[in-house]
Amino acid sequence: MAANPSTEPCRYCTATPAIWLSSSAGVTELAHSRVFLVRDQTHPGRCVVLLKRHARELFELAPDELAAFMAEVARVAQVVHRVSGCDKLNYAVYGDLSPHLHVHIVPKWLGGVAWGEPFVLKPAEGVFLAPEAFDQMLLNLKRGIEVN
Amino acid sequence: MAANPSTEPCRYCTATPAIWLSSSAGVTELAHSRVFLVRDQTHPGRCVVLLKRHARELFELAPDELAAFMAEVARVAQVVHRVSGCDKLNYAVYGDLSPHLHVHIVPKWLGGVAWGEPFVLKPAEGVFLAPEAFDQMLLNLKRGIEVN
Repeated sequence: MAANPSTEPCRYCTATPAIWLSSSAGVTELAHSRVFLVRDQTHPGRCVVLLKRHARELFELAPDELAAFMAEVARVAQVVHRVSGCDKLNYAVYGDLSPHLHVHIVPKWLGGVAWGEPFVLKPAEGVFLAPEAFDQMLLNLKRGIEVN
Repeated sequence: MAANPSTEPCRYCTATPAIWLSSSAGVTELAHSRVFLVRDQTHPGRCVVLLKRHARELFELAPDELAAFMAEVARVAQVVHRVSGCDKLNYAVYGDLSPHLHVHIVPKWLGGVAWGEPFVLKPAEGVFLAPEAFDQMLLNLKRGIEVN
């Protein structure tokens, strides 16, 4: 299948991870993906798992590649679930405007922000932790994912 | 891992597919999943892929099971993409209130409904096709998935 139907280079290929690092911090790198912790912590522990190579849709991945990528998504999700102590995770691939395959992994709490609704993708204001708290979250996720 | 951390039976296990058929129509059944076409066609071609057995989170699935389930999700997505003629798909696992693993597969069009935003999960009014048009969509999806 075509890797990129557009004739223009994908800015998420040419500028990764610079684009992501404007709104996220790098957690770790796995075989098929890079993991980021989103700076806005409206949903504490919210991460993104970005496929390293360019693809727009899940079905563009070969079966083995899809299985390996989703295993990485699940591995990250399990750590986010444990570290955040959330009640449920939301997972989403949107990418209308940034069509380089990436999965949002978003902790939700019963009675908390957007419970029972889609997670808040782009909050008007955002919630930002103190640097020490953010760095601790980053470290906990990194340790959990790398030893998982 | 625990199949269901709740002590109550999951209503999506005990009443499937009755619950889904109140808002969707059955398209087909695959090895690990059931596929439904959502009756609200705010996003024409929108489907749900429901895991047959009970699980809440992706990481509760064994590696082979996750790979096989996601292969079915990708297979359905490819057909939804082709049949709908959309520009991009959105994929989401939410389930805060219905925590039995299911994936929303939602066609989006450049400049169309909710382009650049999360798809409309529960529209206030909804868009409902004439029965013939809905049945034709259902048939096109069914044929595409079953021969894929």
